[in-house]
Amino acid sequence: MALDTERLSWWGWGRSDAALGADETAALATALAAITGAEPPAPRRPADLNSLHLPPPRVSPPRALAPLCRDDVAGRAAHAQGKSFRDVVRAFEGRIEHPPDLVATPRDEADVAAVLDWCSGARIAVIPYGGGTSVVGGVEPRVGEGFAGCVSLDLRGLGRVLEVDSISRAVRVQAGVLGPALEAALRPHGLTLRHYPQSFEHSTVGGWIATRSGGHFATLRTHIDDCVESLRVLPPQGPLETRRLPASGAGPSPDRLFIGSEGALGVITEAWLRVLPRPRYRASASVRFADFDRGSAAARALAQSGLYPANCRLLDATEALLSGAGDGTAALLLVAFEAADRDVEPQLAAALRLCSDAGGTWPTGARRSGPEDAEGEAPARDGAAAWRSAFLRAPYLRDAVIAPGWISETFETAVTWDRFAQLHQAVTGAARSAVAGICGAGVVAARLTHVYPDGCAPYYTVIAAGRPGAQVEQWDAIKRAVSDTVVANGGTITHHHAIGRDHMPWYAQQRPALFAESLAAAKSTLDPSGVLNPGVLLPISR
Amino acid sequence: MALDTERLSWWGWGRSDAALGADETAALATALAAITGAEPPAPRRPADLNSLHLPPPRVSPPRALAPLCRDDVAGRAAHAQGKSFRDVVRAFEGRIEHPPDLVATPRDEADVAAVLDWCSGARIAVIPYGGGTSVVGGVEPRVGEGFAGCVSLDLRGLGRVLEVDSISRAVRVQAGVLGPALEAALRPHGLTLRHYPQSFEHSTVGGWIATRSGGHFATLRTHIDDCVESLRVLPPQGPLETRRLPASGAGPSPDRLFIGSEGALGVITEAWLRVLPRPRYRASASVRFADFDRGSAAARALAQSGLYPANCRLLDATEALLSGAGDGTAALLLVAFEAADRDVEPQLAAALRLCSDAGGTWPTGARRSGPEDAEGEAPARDGAAAWRSAFLRAPYLRDAVIAPGWISETFETAVTWDRFAQLHQAVTGAARSAVAGICGAGVVAARLTHVYPDGCAPYYTVIAAGRPGAQVEQWDAIKRAVSDTVVANGGTITHHHAIGRDHMPWYAQQRPALFAESLAAAKSTLDPSGVLNPGVLLPISR
Repeated sequence: MALDTERLSWWGWGRSDAALGADETAALATALAAITGAEPPAPRRPADLNSLHLPPPRVSPPRALAPLCRDDVAGRAAHAQGKSFRDVVRAFEGRIEHPPDLVATPRDEADVAAVLDWCSGARIAVIPYGGGTSVVGGVEPRVGEGFAGCVSLDLRGLGRVLEVDSISRAVRVQAGVLGPALEAALRPHGLTLRHYPQSFEHSTVGGWIATRSGGHFATLRTHIDDCVESLRVLPPQGPLETRRLPASGAGPSPDRLFIGSEGALGVITEAWLRVLPRPRYRASASVRFADFDRGSAAARALAQSGLYPANCRLLDATEALLSGAGDGTAALLLVAFEAADRDVEPQLAAALRLCSDAGGTWPTGARRSGPEDAEGEAPARDGAAAWRSAFLRAPYLRDAVIAPGWISETFETAVTWDRFAQLHQAVTGAARSAVAGICGAGVVAARLTHVYPDGCAPYYTVIAAGRPGAQVEQWDAIKRAVSDTVVANGGTITHHHAIGRDHMPWYAQQRPALFAESLAAAKSTLDPSGVLNPGVLLPISR
Repeated sequence: MALDTERLSWWGWGRSDAALGADETAALATALAAITGAEPPAPRRPADLNSLHLPPPRVSPPRALAPLCRDDVAGRAAHAQGKSFRDVVRAFEGRIEHPPDLVATPRDEADVAAVLDWCSGARIAVIPYGGGTSVVGGVEPRVGEGFAGCVSLDLRGLGRVLEVDSISRAVRVQAGVLGPALEAALRPHGLTLRHYPQSFEHSTVGGWIATRSGGHFATLRTHIDDCVESLRVLPPQGPLETRRLPASGAGPSPDRLFIGSEGALGVITEAWLRVLPRPRYRASASVRFADFDRGSAAARALAQSGLYPANCRLLDATEALLSGAGDGTAALLLVAFEAADRDVEPQLAAALRLCSDAGGTWPTGARRSGPEDAEGEAPARDGAAAWRSAFLRAPYLRDAVIAPGWISETFETAVTWDRFAQLHQAVTGAARSAVAGICGAGVVAARLTHVYPDGCAPYYTVIAAGRPGAQVEQWDAIKRAVSDTVVANGGTITHHHAIGRDHMPWYAQQRPALFAESLAAAKSTLDPSGVLNPGVLLPISR
């Protein structure tokens, strides 16, 4: 199967033809300058792919695997990093710091097994690669000196939707299926996974599971974890498959060992996922609050109400402005309910009573309900829809502002409600202080992406004027400051961006040492030569 | 802390003073004879505790631990088995087959550590023991010949509720807290865990977590798993504590390694649990269906509706009759919704529309709704309440009928909806055939205890006329037949009764071999001398 990677940007987000044009970029730069109070830096051009000089591949595949492998500069450069700010800036500048020696493109599980066999025997690191949208260094072959080489294992060739079970509402998919292809296969059955990470268009089911991705729903099915009914995983020691079950009490969940294993314990090759009937009814409102604190009180009330809104996203005034959902004068809480077979207006009414109790207000036009189109996507008539559209588009905007030298990145966490106010104050303080000290001018915006009865997932956006050529190091310094603060204040280093290599120092503080030793023992069993994604989850052995 | 174990039955369920009287027992035997078509066997008396002859303890504690240890016959006999049918019959008959050498009663985590240190060094098996209500051989010291001795580690001394966080709605508890004590501590805060396994009155929080117990809710928070915010666990290698988080995407969940670990990976000493506001509103109905198949279609519709009923239990006609919820002429679906702060009648109305579509009917008196007493427990005016009351009382009835020689036991599973009909038919067929062949007369009743969008948890009751003195072997033969059938038809060997020692042969078929090897590697890290609950989860090493 030929991979349609040609139209994807080798250095930036998504498709090259979807990038912002010059006029749009200039307007964006002007707007950012107004918001941040910084001078817009001068535009620059990305490095020329044809003039990149990569070190020659250190390994070459055995004859049987040669047809699956490529070692051209375009392929190696595109697989040399993910899509975080620091990844995209480095690629833009032609800093291809850790290219894989080869990119392998298996067509099926037997191909994956053959690659793993070869690499295990030859001590070649293998980086499982789905859509390559990691923002935490999860797919960057930064594996140290202990390996004979490194192969990026691009799994998009395992791209088939294998089986739909309409009775149990589940679908069996290969790991390399992209979000839109999965939804297209489910649509004729009236079903949907309705899992929309920001990377939805370019990331894979296997990547979602390996990284515990967060999706559309603000409550209940927040992570892909909850959608996984069973898994098929291929570690170097051989395949294992868990039993399809709606629930089980038979020992520690085998699925949960591999969900979040980030390619370090095995290559996820297939999964049964729980799907839903397509929503036909939706009721939503955009509620204004004087400030983020009052909005977060409403979000907590909603999270603890048992109403389970599909959407419950709180944007602070700056985030509302940046995303186009508000005018920057108030925090906005976007609340929505959806269902396949009944009006959800009563739930919205109950939710709005809680919002009103917390001081929220909403103009007439900010509330909508009724049957929607079959996509369950409201037209862009309200704040929620505007925000959602901006959500999928945001990475393209980020790339456009990286070029002239802005810093634009996000980070996120989760924390229990009792610690939320203190964490939020500490983190915004640390972020603003770091931005001021390192960049001079910039803004820090906040939102809550997911809410739980016992806590929430705060998500922060940093936009600042960077120094061209020093953006990565400037961001790294800001990131260190905020990550230290997150972990010191009871948060997790990630709610849904995964650990990768970038989060390892904080993950090491957060997870119990004996748990890490247990994982290392499991890895030794599954991947005895330690070639699978070395340096994520666990330090590189030897 | 002195343990109030004196009033607990040493051989049977719960409190001695709650057992059935002679008249009640006789009436029950007559009723069972009518239902099963079997002759009621003659009453017998339990073995005399004072005449039990146990082998002398093989080990004695070091001086420092002596005050924590007891080796009297009553203590050893009470800790020699759990509370399954086969456990209770054997104890009743004085067959104390695997008594621990000692019972240790730690008062705090330091005591637990001291016991683990001693036992690890001396290769003495340690059986973590909470309320001792295992029905799968999880607390029976059946550990083979490879140990110098065996200590039953009774954790009920770790019985304090440590902290209530009303903001995040969570509670920090020691592992030995019993269900009623936890609820009593939460009540003044207006909170409740609302996790009611059938063992609620006698089992511990640590036991629930170690065995993935199933509770009150038929949807969403079905297992204790979902209530666990963080854990503190003590393996022989030292304590580990997970971070309190509402959710996290940082690697495989450390909590999920220990949830369901059945004492084989570490002793759970503390947990933060997510709690709820006490329900004030309830709406329930008891819906009749012509047969179990039609009822299960309604249960599936409810499970997939997004309505999330608190209760959605389907009883077949025989189960309805046995439990007193019905007259044996129809299947009953008990549906209930509950909430703290709003009327849930609209949800019930929506649920009943689905039931009606599936052919369900309900008389006027079978539907109730409105604010309830602060306990959230409806008075025994409807089928649901009658069923719930019978639920907690059932183990006492079982013990009463064991004496005269009945066989009375349950087994359960979970399966996806697409396989449910076939599994149910195969399992009831296998059970009836085994009962007929082995016992002659008896009944097999079925219910669904929990429902999921992608499947359900069927639960079976077997009541048959046993041959006094051979009841255990008769049941074991029936159990083998039904377990083979469950696993061959895509079910799990347990939805919420755990694995223990009794389910190991089927668990070994069900879980991937490489997962078992990974668990074994983790166990070697946490418990290098292999003394923790040997033979559960993993075969005994050496």
